[in-house]
Amino acid sequence: MDDKEYVGFATLPNQVHRKSVKKGFDFTLMVAGESGLGKSTLVNSLFLTDLYRDRKLLSAEERIMQTVEITKHAVDIEEKGVRLRLTIVDTPGFGDAVNNTECWKPVAEYIDQQFEQYFRDESGLNRKNIQDNRVHCCLYFISPFGHGLRPLDVEFMKALHQRVNIVPILAKADTLTPPEVERKKRKIREEIERFGIKVYQFPDCDSDEDEDFKLQDQALKESIPFAVIGSNTVVEARGRRVRGRLYPWGIVEVENPGHCDFVKLRTMLVRTHMQDLKDVTRETHYENYRAQCIQSMTRLVVKERNRKYGQKPGQSWRGRGGGESQVQPWVRASSSFVLQGLGSVQAGVPLALPSPFPPSPQQTDSREWYRLPHPCCPTRDRSRNGEADPRER
Amino acid sequence: MDDKEYVGFATLPNQVHRKSVKKGFDFTLMVAGESGLGKSTLVNSLFLTDLYRDRKLLSAEERIMQTVEITKHAVDIEEKGVRLRLTIVDTPGFGDAVNNTECWKPVAEYIDQQFEQYFRDESGLNRKNIQDNRVHCCLYFISPFGHGLRPLDVEFMKALHQRVNIVPILAKADTLTPPEVERKKRKIREEIERFGIKVYQFPDCDSDEDEDFKLQDQALKESIPFAVIGSNTVVEARGRRVRGRLYPWGIVEVENPGHCDFVKLRTMLVRTHMQDLKDVTRETHYENYRAQCIQSMTRLVVKERNRKYGQKPGQSWRGRGGGESQVQPWVRASSSFVLQGLGSVQAGVPLALPSPFPPSPQQTDSREWYRLPHPCCPTRDRSRNGEADPRER
Repeated sequence: MDDKEYVGFATLPNQVHRKSVKKGFDFTLMVAGESGLGKSTLVNSLFLTDLYRDRKLLSAEERIMQTVEITKHAVDIEEKGVRLRLTIVDTPGFGDAVNNTECWKPVAEYIDQQFEQYFRDESGLNRKNIQDNRVHCCLYFISPFGHGLRPLDVEFMKALHQRVNIVPILAKADTLTPPEVERKKRKIREEIERFGIKVYQFPDCDSDEDEDFKLQDQALKESIPFAVIGSNTVVEARGRRVRGRLYPWGIVEVENPGHCDFVKLRTMLVRTHMQDLKDVTRETHYENYRAQCIQSMTRLVVKERNRKYGQKPGQSWRGRGGGESQVQPWVRASSSFVLQGLGSVQAGVPLALPSPFPPSPQQTDSREWYRLPHPCCPTRDRSRNGEADPRER
Repeated sequence: MDDKEYVGFATLPNQVHRKSVKKGFDFTLMVAGESGLGKSTLVNSLFLTDLYRDRKLLSAEERIMQTVEITKHAVDIEEKGVRLRLTIVDTPGFGDAVNNTECWKPVAEYIDQQFEQYFRDESGLNRKNIQDNRVHCCLYFISPFGHGLRPLDVEFMKALHQRVNIVPILAKADTLTPPEVERKKRKIREEIERFGIKVYQFPDCDSDEDEDFKLQDQALKESIPFAVIGSNTVVEARGRRVRGRLYPWGIVEVENPGHCDFVKLRTMLVRTHMQDLKDVTRETHYENYRAQCIQSMTRLVVKERNRKYGQKPGQSWRGRGGGESQVQPWVRASSSFVLQGLGSVQAGVPLALPSPFPPSPQQTDSREWYRLPHPCCPTRDRSRNGEADPRER
C-alpha cells in the first residue's frame, strides 16, 4: 500500500518540462566590441552554425564613414528534439571610428526599444502572439592588447549594465601566455569592481547541490572575463580532428580547457545558465525599465496637470499643496495607470517618453528624449534594426 | 569528434525543470455542488491530506438561513522534493436553500475578483511578489440521483464555463450499478452538449506520443463525467489494506478502476493535466476576462467623452462622426490605455467596472455592476472570501 500513498504532483516539473519542449525556446544574444576581435567566429563556434554567410567586410575607407548600426541574424537550430530560435544581435562599426564618443548610444537605444515594444505589447489587448525581442545577454569583447579595460569599455559597460546581462570576454587569447592571461584577467576584474560595473552575476548555488556542480560553479565565477579563442576550421591534433588554429609552433585547440575558456563559456552560456539569463532579463532588467518608465511618465503627467490647473511648481495637482514628496505615495500606487492613461488622452499624437536611464555615465543630470509613436500610428523608422524578422510564433 | 559536435542547448528543458522545482508550485482547486455529495472526502482522498479538520457541519435549520459563502483552505504538501501549495476553494451552502435562484452568483463573483486582483497587480509597479489566487479548476459535483443534469447544474456550468475549467463529477457513484453509471454518463454528456456547456477540454495528443499515452488520453476523454467514490478509511480487501467502503454486500475500493473513476480523475487532475489547467486559466480564461474588461471600460470612456463634449450618441468623441462601428479600430488598439487612464483620472474615487460576462444564462441583455475600489483605497469588504491567506511568496 505504500507505493499507493502517492498523490502524483511530483510529476509537475515533468509536465512543465514537456510543455517547454513542445513550445520551443528562443534566445537573443548580443555581441559587442571593436571589429576584428573574433565576435562572429566565436558565435559560429559556440552554436556550430554559420550565422554570417552573407556578411560583407568593410574597407578602412568605408569604416571611416560608417556609424554604429545594429544587425540581427536569426537561425532555428534543433538538438535532441529541442528547438531553439537563436537571434544574434551584432553591432558592426562599434568602436571603429576615430572619435567614438557615445558610440554605445545606438546599442542602448536598441535594447530600450525592445523593452518598450514588449511593454506596449504586454499592455495591449491581444497578447497571444507577442514577439519577444528583448536581449538576454551581451558578450562584450575586450581587446587582449589593452592594459586592462579601455575607457570605451568602461563607458559601454556602465551605460549598458542596467539594461542587459553583460558577460565580459577577453578576446583572441592566443596572443597571451598563461601567466599573461591570469594577470590581464585579474586586472580587468579589479577594474570592473573599481568602476562599479555590474556584469552578469551567476546565481548562488543551492546548498543541496552536489559537490561537482559546486566546484564547476566556483570555477565559472573565477573565470571572468572568459579568455577565448575561436576557430571554424578543423585541424588534426594528437591524432584527433579538433576545432583549432594551426601555428608553426603548435596547435591551439579551442575546446581544450588548458588552452582557453571556450568550453567554460559555452557551458555557462548554453548548458547551465541560459534560462537564468532569460529570467534575469525578464525579472530584473525589463522590470527596471518598466518601473522607471512608469515613474518618469507619472512625473510628466503631474507636471502637465499642475500647468493646466494653474498651480505653482511644488503644489500637487490635487491641490494638497506641499512639496513633490507628498505626491509620492499616490504616484507609486497608480503610476502605471497614469502612464497608460496618457496614451489615450493623446491618442494618435506621437508621444515623447523620457528614457528611464541616464544617457551617459558622465552626464547623469541631463535627460534624453525618445520620440515614440502611439501604437496606433507607428511613424518611427524601425528599418535600422536590421532586416525584418518574419517569425510568427 | 562526433560527440563534441554538440552545442548543449538541449539542456534547456532541464534548466526549466530545475528552476520550477526550486520555485515550487501552486494550484487552486474549487469544489462546487450541493452538500452531502462527498466533496470534502474526495479532496482529502485525492491529496491524501485532511483539509477540513475544523469543518463545522450545519444543521438543516442553520442551512435554511445560510447563503452561499466561499471558504479557502490552503495546505503545503511535498512529494519527492516537489513542493505544492494547494488551495481548495469551497462553496458551502451552494444549492442547499429552498430557492436557489442565482446561487451561482457568489461563485462567479469570487472567480472574477481573483482575476480582477491579478489584473490590478500585474498592471502595478512592483510585480515581484504577486499573489496569484486565480482558480485553476472547478470540480462540479453532479448528484447520482438526478435524471441527468438538474436545472441548477445547467445554470451553474453555463454561468461559470467562460471563467474557469469545469470538470464534471458524477458523485457517490456507489449507488449506481455499472450499466446505470454508463447510461447516466451518456445522458450527462449529451446534455452538456445540448446546452452548449463548455467543460474543460483535454488538449489533443501530439502525433509523436507513444501508443500507451494516446490510449490513456482517449480513455480519459471518454470518462467524462468522472464517476467517483471517495473514502478516507482504510479497509481490508482481498488480503490488502485499501482505501474503501465496507458494505454488507462487499467492499468498494476507491482506487480500483473496475469500481469507479477515482484513479482516472487523479491521474488527469494531478499527474498529467495540472499544468495544462493552469495554462488554460492563464492564457484563455484570464485573457478573456482582461480583454472584455478593457473593452467594457473603453466603451464607458467613449460615452463619458461624448457626454462631456456635448456630442450626440453615435458620434465619436474625436468628432469623426458616424456610427459606433467607426470607433472600433481605435478602441481595439488603445483600450488598455484607456482603461488604465480612467484609474488615474478618478484616482481615489471608487470605480464601477462592468462585469465582462453576462450575469445569467437567461438574462444576457442586462448588465451587472460591481463596485470596485481604486487600488489606493481598498474599501471593498473582502472578508467574505474566507480567512486571509498569509502566504508571502
